[in-house]
Amino acid sequence: MSARLKHFGWGREGEGLSADEEAFVLARAQARFGATLAQGATAPRLEEIALPEPRVSAPASLPFCSSDHYDRAAHTFGKSYPDLVRALARDYAGAPDVVAYPRDEAEVAAVLDWAGGADATVTPFGGGSSVCGGVEPKRNGHKGAVTVDLRNLGKVKEVDKISRAALIEGGTYGPALEAQLRPHGLTLRHFPQSFEYSTLGGWIATRGGGHFATLYTHIDDLVESLRTVTPKGLIESRRLPGSGAGPSPDRMMIGSEGILGIITQAWMRLQQRPTFRAGGAVRFADFFTAARAVRAVSQAGLYPSNCRILDPAEAYNTGAADGSVAIMVLAFESADHDVTPWMRRALECCTDHGGTPEAGGAEAHREGAAGVWRNAFIRMPYAMERLILRAVINDTFETAITWERFEQFHDAIKRATGNAIHAATGRKGEVTCRFTHVYPDGPAPYFTFHALGEPGALGGQWHAIKSAALDAVIENGGTVTHHHAVGRDHRPWYDRQRPPLFAAALRAAKKTLDPQGLLNPGVLIDP
Amino acid sequence: MSARLKHFGWGREGEGLSADEEAFVLARAQARFGATLAQGATAPRLEEIALPEPRVSAPASLPFCSSDHYDRAAHTFGKSYPDLVRALARDYAGAPDVVAYPRDEAEVAAVLDWAGGADATVTPFGGGSSVCGGVEPKRNGHKGAVTVDLRNLGKVKEVDKISRAALIEGGTYGPALEAQLRPHGLTLRHFPQSFEYSTLGGWIATRGGGHFATLYTHIDDLVESLRTVTPKGLIESRRLPGSGAGPSPDRMMIGSEGILGIITQAWMRLQQRPTFRAGGAVRFADFFTAARAVRAVSQAGLYPSNCRILDPAEAYNTGAADGSVAIMVLAFESADHDVTPWMRRALECCTDHGGTPEAGGAEAHREGAAGVWRNAFIRMPYAMERLILRAVINDTFETAITWERFEQFHDAIKRATGNAIHAATGRKGEVTCRFTHVYPDGPAPYFTFHALGEPGALGGQWHAIKSAALDAVIENGGTVTHHHAVGRDHRPWYDRQRPPLFAAALRAAKKTLDPQGLLNPGVLIDP
Repeated sequence: MSARLKHFGWGREGEGLSADEEAFVLARAQARFGATLAQGATAPRLEEIALPEPRVSAPASLPFCSSDHYDRAAHTFGKSYPDLVRALARDYAGAPDVVAYPRDEAEVAAVLDWAGGADATVTPFGGGSSVCGGVEPKRNGHKGAVTVDLRNLGKVKEVDKISRAALIEGGTYGPALEAQLRPHGLTLRHFPQSFEYSTLGGWIATRGGGHFATLYTHIDDLVESLRTVTPKGLIESRRLPGSGAGPSPDRMMIGSEGILGIITQAWMRLQQRPTFRAGGAVRFADFFTAARAVRAVSQAGLYPSNCRILDPAEAYNTGAADGSVAIMVLAFESADHDVTPWMRRALECCTDHGGTPEAGGAEAHREGAAGVWRNAFIRMPYAMERLILRAVINDTFETAITWERFEQFHDAIKRATGNAIHAATGRKGEVTCRFTHVYPDGPAPYFTFHALGEPGALGGQWHAIKSAALDAVIENGGTVTHHHAVGRDHRPWYDRQRPPLFAAALRAAKKTLDPQGLLNPGVLIDP
Repeated sequence: MSARLKHFGWGREGEGLSADEEAFVLARAQARFGATLAQGATAPRLEEIALPEPRVSAPASLPFCSSDHYDRAAHTFGKSYPDLVRALARDYAGAPDVVAYPRDEAEVAAVLDWAGGADATVTPFGGGSSVCGGVEPKRNGHKGAVTVDLRNLGKVKEVDKISRAALIEGGTYGPALEAQLRPHGLTLRHFPQSFEYSTLGGWIATRGGGHFATLYTHIDDLVESLRTVTPKGLIESRRLPGSGAGPSPDRMMIGSEGILGIITQAWMRLQQRPTFRAGGAVRFADFFTAARAVRAVSQAGLYPSNCRILDPAEAYNTGAADGSVAIMVLAFESADHDVTPWMRRALECCTDHGGTPEAGGAEAHREGAAGVWRNAFIRMPYAMERLILRAVINDTFETAITWERFEQFHDAIKRATGNAIHAATGRKGEVTCRFTHVYPDGPAPYFTFHALGEPGALGGQWHAIKSAALDAVIENGGTVTHHHAVGRDHRPWYDRQRPPLFAAALRAAKKTLDPQGLLNPGVLIDP
């Protein structure tokens, strides 16, 4: 945690694509658009960013608050494409007035109390890696805006090796969380793409998706109990392995995206570190054939830790294959037993559906297509901040759909997105698809799109494309997000998806816990 | 569905223990208390039950409503011990004024509309097998009380074999549900003890626990989407295999016990009918040793369909063993693959912890201790209505606790319950324990108690014992219910368990959906 988080782009200062990685990504993009992509814009330097005067300032009794230039600039945006667009335009007008770094739960409560009195909205901030406008401060008619950055709540406070659970503070970043569990032989094994720049509280607040492609797909099932500070006080649930006592209090908080309170700590269910592994890549003639194999594996009750598929274009773009085949990345892991029988049966499901396993075993898995893809997957978020300088528009959206509608759904989404790219930019782009998580009743397809835009018009072009894509998702029965969150960017589509009376009930719950409507206004519902 | 539901006791008219079964149960009870148990009371005949005049009556436009004597008497109580006590006292004063049997969702909505205008409370009624006061009509200051019996919403409306899901009406009883799925080769495999006398809507409304001892323990995870009629209108969620879009709307309804609306239909996730099985019983020297083996199996990631343990006294009482050993009932099942490797590893976990597998395989499983226990399990609910006539007090309560607290928890609960039996009845009783469901982070212990009470004083004696037991559950960190529900009987303890601000949020949600506070008043919260 030595370097600071960037005020523009992914990760920490000094991080980014290597020259080789950038050359690879750029070559792929130039080939895709048949054009040389010159750099037409530059990332904003901190000193050229002008911020409005703070409208509220923290009292001396809250010494963990800051209105420094860097702190405010670095908390103005999340990591979405339109965030980068506005940052490129040096438009940091939405910066928070104050950034608070509370060091314990009492200080979280103290910030909420002060903000209530000062008429300032409160935006909870974990690692800041929201890609849907979830951490952007909004005054929403109030006097000021305070961002609460929870990085100092970063401890694993207690480990229960017998029940395999740990009490972990909400601001704990992924790597710090795993590092503190490692000496106990335990792991949460929740590895989102944003792992290095996201926190436990953020994962819970957004119903984040993690490492496991099946079974424990979301953070939801890993939560044993929660402690949340609301403007009206503390909500703490019991540590229970299971319960049937009324609607789950935790399930009201999980996915609440900071509109009901700030998650300060949670008892989390852990795994022992796996020692048995089996895995490999399987090639398929096309994506739908691969999808049918995924369905067979997921309905077989085998529960692979990894069961992802890439369509031929996505496999090509990440360097995992030559573009002629779809790739499945398949893996089992266990701390208890040899998983060979599980892997053998899953591979049978694949060959039954026309798949061809890559030669070699677990070793090849780390080196072959699966390994190449995994590396590309982790480095991918660094590409956007480079490509946008060359007017490339690229973004992702992810959803879920039941199997019986999947093929028609997939085609409709790709068609709508491709058409929108052409309409918005006047030239052909590319839309690719992979599965990130799968269920017996359907997959979670994850779409990536690439377009070449016009400097100065990127925001509007992005919006036209993304809107057409999400229109198609909603009209064809999908969810606006499977594991990224709603935030503000997805609100119009979430409003169409969510039952209106559920929204009314949620508004009533919010009114009870946050009567002034200060917490993350505009996310999920309007207070 | 030929015979009517009983107005007193479990199941349908004409059903009950056979003479042999009753003799077995009675002999066990007499041996336990060292006393001959003469029958001192008789079950109320329908014609000797006096009901108050109905305070509201349904209009002719709702021809599916009835105020007949039988209908009102048969909907006065659930199936708890205090329900039987009041029934024995011929105290049917709480009978509903009207019982509605709507035949479709529109008629459900029509009943709600009429009840709102007539100022009558509304109690949803599935199979009526609540053991915690969940289906008892309460006027709660309103003019009348209407029970909505959903038995006519009993169809499987649509089957999606590709996604393995079905659209099923809320009033569908267990056997009818499985019978309609069978031709498609599919099964919900949700087999609570009440399977024959409970409905899909009831399972969902109470977060019921089912067949699977691990993984899919509650109905919660089997729900793909829900349709609920509230006094303010319909709430319908999308069919999605998974989603991260805000707090789950379904999770607000699952466990809401009829206070927010009436579940009219649900898309449910199904299984293929299993064709591969492995199972057997394992003997252990004592219950805690068996529990440690269960922990090993559940933390191994093997996911047995059955992994239940009975303490020596419970094994004896059901005839599964001689009282000197604890018994584990262990089983794996799959429609896809041979489960021998899974079973082999689970048995290794057991023998590592001192377990001795019973000789024989799956065949012996059906005939041996596991089979005996299974049969006793299904017949058990019929015993209470016979034993109460001989002043026997017997009841169960079930909870969950994390592993690191389990042994101390178990002893504290048994001690408190045993002491309360002695204090309330002046003689020793018996408290036994089994596990019904298990999780990597803890078990769901299920306690049964037996006491010999005083005719005429049974209600108070039962209350003293049950209260002491639940006090101990709550004080020692458990949940007031793992899968039976809260109802009205568990309210005082639920109020201590549930975070107060969550109760406030739930009340606000209810106020939004049920502004008159008519739905199942007093369950979970006070409107």
